[in-house]
Amino acid sequence: MTTAAPSARALAHPAREEIRLEGVLHALSDPLRMLIVCELAAAQVGVTCSHFDLPVTKSTSTHHFRVLREAGVIQQNYRGTAKLNGLRRDDLDALFPGLLDSVLDAAARQEARLGA
Amino acid sequence: MTTAAPSARALAHPAREEIRLEGVLHALSDPLRMLIVCELAAAQVGVTCSHFDLPVTKSTSTHHFRVLREAGVIQQNYRGTAKLNGLRRDDLDALFPGLLDSVLDAAARQEARLGA
Repeated sequence: MTTAAPSARALAHPAREEIRLEGVLHALSDPLRMLIVCELAAAQVGVTCSHFDLPVTKSTSTHHFRVLREAGVIQQNYRGTAKLNGLRRDDLDALFPGLLDSVLDAAARQEARLGA
Repeated sequence: MTTAAPSARALAHPAREEIRLEGVLHALSDPLRMLIVCELAAAQVGVTCSHFDLPVTKSTSTHHFRVLREAGVIQQNYRGTAKLNGLRRDDLDALFPGLLDSVLDAAARQEARLGA
């Protein structure tokens, strides 16, 4: 069972109850994926993949978005040929209250400390 | 620079300022390592590796403890031939306030939900 819309072009997403803490933490343990998550947290609307100026190839970027989607951290839906990305904040907050905010805060503190 | 004691048998630990969020999250993204961290959080004193009844070989267990130590999540110090393990709560709380508690809470919630 997934939360994806029943379309041939819909992307597979875990249902809320299928999301696992270890998968979420693994998805967040990569600096580029954390960067994506921080930008999505700051955005109030869906963001296309091409919005992100990541220093990696397109296929590597696609891989990172897929890891985040398959872990249940983000949702990805097609709009035309572009993928719109958004954080699954409601699902994560329901399963793990406070976790996402503490990770985002930790990332901001580290960025402020290291300037990276 | 490390926080390890200047002994030939001392184990290398990252100094507080060397601890990175991505390394901490990666260390916590494995179920066995999370189990170790939860038990250490519940313990008020150092705990030997042999205390943990992990369903893996000794070398795999040693690997997991090393990942946690090198990420800055735990400290390991020899007492005789045994290693005493403890959470680096002060360091983690100073760097990433609230993160460890929210992860421990998330792990407890998932265990209660899945019974695993």
